[in-house]
Amino acid sequence: MQTIDLNADLGEGYGAWTMGDDAAMLAIVSSANVACGGHAGDPDTMAKTLQLARSHGVVTGAHPSYPDRHGFGRRRLPMTPAEIQRFTAAQIGALIAIGRLVGQPISYVKPHGALANVAAQDGAVADAIIRAVHSVDPHLAILAISGTMLEQVARQRGVRVFSEIFADRGYTPDGLLVPRSDPGAMIHDPDVAAKRLLGFFQNWQMPTVGGASVTLKAHSVCIHGDSPDAVAMAGHIRASFTARGIGIAPFMSRG
Amino acid sequence: MQTIDLNADLGEGYGAWTMGDDAAMLAIVSSANVACGGHAGDPDTMAKTLQLARSHGVVTGAHPSYPDRHGFGRRRLPMTPAEIQRFTAAQIGALIAIGRLVGQPISYVKPHGALANVAAQDGAVADAIIRAVHSVDPHLAILAISGTMLEQVARQRGVRVFSEIFADRGYTPDGLLVPRSDPGAMIHDPDVAAKRLLGFFQNWQMPTVGGASVTLKAHSVCIHGDSPDAVAMAGHIRASFTARGIGIAPFMSRG
Amino acid sequence: MQTIDLNADLGEGYGAWTMGDDAAMLAIVSSANVACGGHAGDPDTMAKTLQLARSHGVVTGAHPSYPDRHGFGRRRLPMTPAEIQRFTAAQIGALIAIGRLVGQPISYVKPHGALANVAAQDGAVADAIIRAVHSVDPHLAILAISGTMLEQVARQRGVRVFSEIFADRGYTPDGLLVPRSDPGAMIHDPDVAAKRLLGFFQNWQMPTVGGASVTLKAHSVCIHGDSPDAVAMAGHIRASFTARGIGIAPFMSRG
Amino acid sequence: MQTIDLNADLGEGYGAWTMGDDAAMLAIVSSANVACGGHAGDPDTMAKTLQLARSHGVVTGAHPSYPDRHGFGRRRLPMTPAEIQRFTAAQIGALIAIGRLVGQPISYVKPHGALANVAAQDGAVADAIIRAVHSVDPHLAILAISGTMLEQVARQRGVRVFSEIFADRGYTPDGLLVPRSDPGAMIHDPDVAAKRLLGFFQNWQMPTVGGASVTLKAHSVCIHGDSPDAVAMAGHIRASFTARGIGIAPFMSRG
Repeated sequence: MQTIDLNADLGEGYGAWTMGDDAAMLAIVSSANVACGGHAGDPDTMAKTLQLARSHGVVTGAHPSYPDRHGFGRRRLPMTPAEIQRFTAAQIGALIAIGRLVGQPISYVKPHGALANVAAQDGAVADAIIRAVHSVDPHLAILAISGTMLEQVARQRGVRVFSEIFADRGYTPDGLLVPRSDPGAMIHDPDVAAKRLLGFFQNWQMPTVGGASVTLKAHSVCIHGDSPDAVAMAGHIRASFTARGIGIAPFMSRG
Repeated sequence: MQTIDLNADLGEGYGAWTMGDDAAMLAIVSSANVACGGHAGDPDTMAKTLQLARSHGVVTGAHPSYPDRHGFGRRRLPMTPAEIQRFTAAQIGALIAIGRLVGQPISYVKPHGALANVAAQDGAVADAIIRAVHSVDPHLAILAISGTMLEQVARQRGVRVFSEIFADRGYTPDGLLVPRSDPGAMIHDPDVAAKRLLGFFQNWQMPTVGGASVTLKAHSVCIHGDSPDAVAMAGHIRASFTARGIGIAPFMSRG
Repeated sequence: MQTIDLNADLGEGYGAWTMGDDAAMLAIVSSANVACGGHAGDPDTMAKTLQLARSHGVVTGAHPSYPDRHGFGRRRLPMTPAEIQRFTAAQIGALIAIGRLVGQPISYVKPHGALANVAAQDGAVADAIIRAVHSVDPHLAILAISGTMLEQVARQRGVRVFSEIFADRGYTPDGLLVPRSDPGAMIHDPDVAAKRLLGFFQNWQMPTVGGASVTLKAHSVCIHGDSPDAVAMAGHIRASFTARGIGIAPFMSRG
Repeated sequence: MQTIDLNADLGEGYGAWTMGDDAAMLAIVSSANVACGGHAGDPDTMAKTLQLARSHGVVTGAHPSYPDRHGFGRRRLPMTPAEIQRFTAAQIGALIAIGRLVGQPISYVKPHGALANVAAQDGAVADAIIRAVHSVDPHLAILAISGTMLEQVARQRGVRVFSEIFADRGYTPDGLLVPRSDPGAMIHDPDVAAKRLLGFFQNWQMPTVGGASVTLKAHSVCIHGDSPDAVAMAGHIRASFTARGIGIAPFMSRG
């Protein structure tokens, strides 16, 4: 039976604030990227999210970010690769420790927001992150956006890396995401999103805004959890896969 | 050759702010309690402090605190033992991760400020901390104030624990610290402090403000690093020990 | 025509996080207590909330809090009256400045959460707050929980004060709120809440959990905006008042 | 008698952390730029600094910054002019409120660090700041680096503006500061700095690293307070002026 992983960003609240419906998403996804104090998350949200993931049998990864709670990690902060390496390590370490407390291991690392975008293009930053991950725990894998510098550097460094595509984002002929400000950037219709994914997993050809399709590699599909209709889209995608006999299963084992 | 450990709180800056003279203290002490983001410390100060400790051959421990940068961890925040357990784990985990990045292991944990004071008396908090430490890494030891609940709970839980006395604090006949607001709380004269310690390590009898002395256990002497004369006092104490043929050495090995 | 004020806490998000449905509440209430950076709120949420209030013709007050974003201002922090005075002044000053930027004046001050609870009972804290408010701008009024120390001290100091009761909280025979952990603390049924208020405004007698009623003074009714059913309850209360010919209007003019 | 203003950045601590020797500097300068919560400063440091300034008869201004405590306001954060306008207003408002509490008025505004550098060159940011200042209080003046966009926009907008030069920074033939990474950026010798200033105030010609001099306007000399030798340099400059019969006096009156 063919399986595919669905991943989502979870645990992105802080104190009394929440973001999205974590419990609903954990019933849909097979992997959860857990905020670890950079853009969101505190020790209590980390513990709660990891416990919930554990009870759903969902594999968990760390979701480090520029230390920018106010900007939710969406801003590119002027920080050096050495600084990025240190905060990435510290955030992952904090989540691993909470994971030990609640009995849920951290299996992989996926950078968040602006950090992911920078690591997708900047080799020095990608290298800083890969080395931080490898130093903290050599068993940690990387979950990278398909076709990025981060994916490439992980492979060069001998760090296990998995690739993701996005359920609701348009692609350019180069295999990159259409910028959010451009037409075709977002797919809002769950059915359109699901059909595109089903087609893609037959031949690894991703339709693009240019008309032609591009070959991509993918071990996981990222579905967003913070928009109002996120749970509905995520549920529809899961149902579409399972209706075709494609199982939803994590890209790597739990620990 | 008899040896004794000297420990100090280091890495207690944040961003552009510093506290005390870490480099000078690292030439004097044998163990350093490194701030890990609770009351002070960020990934860069952690990395810098651990690297400096490494170059001085100083053993390093984590120095977790109530998450209270503004109050420098000196305020008792209204937090439950479960919350304390989680932030303690997260802070230790962050420092361990930075330690792996720079090649300096974290050997023990010593709570900071108000957290240490609460853990000295409150069994539930002491237990929360001990379990956090043990969950994160069962090889971590505890450095506790001699005669406290934290020391006792660590022993009950089978966690290796070392005890410390204070170079510059007065003691009550019960073996507790004289409150800072009371007469005799502080010893300001380096020579008085050094002589008291030398006497103590001959027979484990600590003079008290009540006149009589009290029996205490001690593997380490805590010397403060954040007062203007801290380095001078620390240096004098070290010199006094070595002049008597007592070596300065960590209470536990580095890794 | 008799009128009554409805007030709610708004602008309680931070960065990307939101709390409740501010736009919906601003169509219901006549006064809005705007978070000013203590427990919630940043310059952007302040500006956005004040602009929205302005467009709805809603009078706005400052809603200062213990500086405790992580605890959402619900924890009693160990701070002196002098410290409380300073952070209260600073938070009010920040909101006034934003108000000037967007053309919406700040008319009154209502303490938030734990700060309100402490100011309700502790005369020194009440006095610190009253003096902070008066120093920053002598035209600012106080909105206090009916029957509290804060109300009393404001009156003693000659600061204009208005009193509020709660739409959804049970009262004790002493005119205090039933603690949240006790039976009868919360009223969940909008119709029960509305009927109680309508009865109260006929004779100023508030029913209590003890059976008898207590005389209270009230210029405003506080309706909570952060629970899932908040908007429905608020709307029902407003509709019940207007159906009886009681208008909804602010307790003081805009500025 | 000719007079010149000396200004320095003060109140740049946070909680238990301090930066420089504020008390010593307040005996030397005539104007103090007080951190107001952006890069440094909390309500207690603001109150303490304003009280100390008041007791020295020093005029005080607000010293707003990118909200970046961790980076001490030295990093250019990716924020829009509208966001800059709001945080600038909020920071100034907080300081004004504290000033009212302690009886020390805020007379002017001088942007800090990276914000000052951006406002020196970017007209939209300069305009955002000028409008924030003017909205909060139309009596506030601007203290701008001589020759910058901020100075120019203030003048265009009809906001009173004063210009400053730097005691310890080298100038280019264009009247700009030599970048810190270039030779000649810093003047470390107090005597060299003092002699250059004395010469400058005879004919408004500033020597440059290019050999020729450049005409600058100046109402104030900025002397840094956060380097180890800051107090010595500041004291020497003050003494050099007064020895020549030039008085040290604020560029504007206190209230």
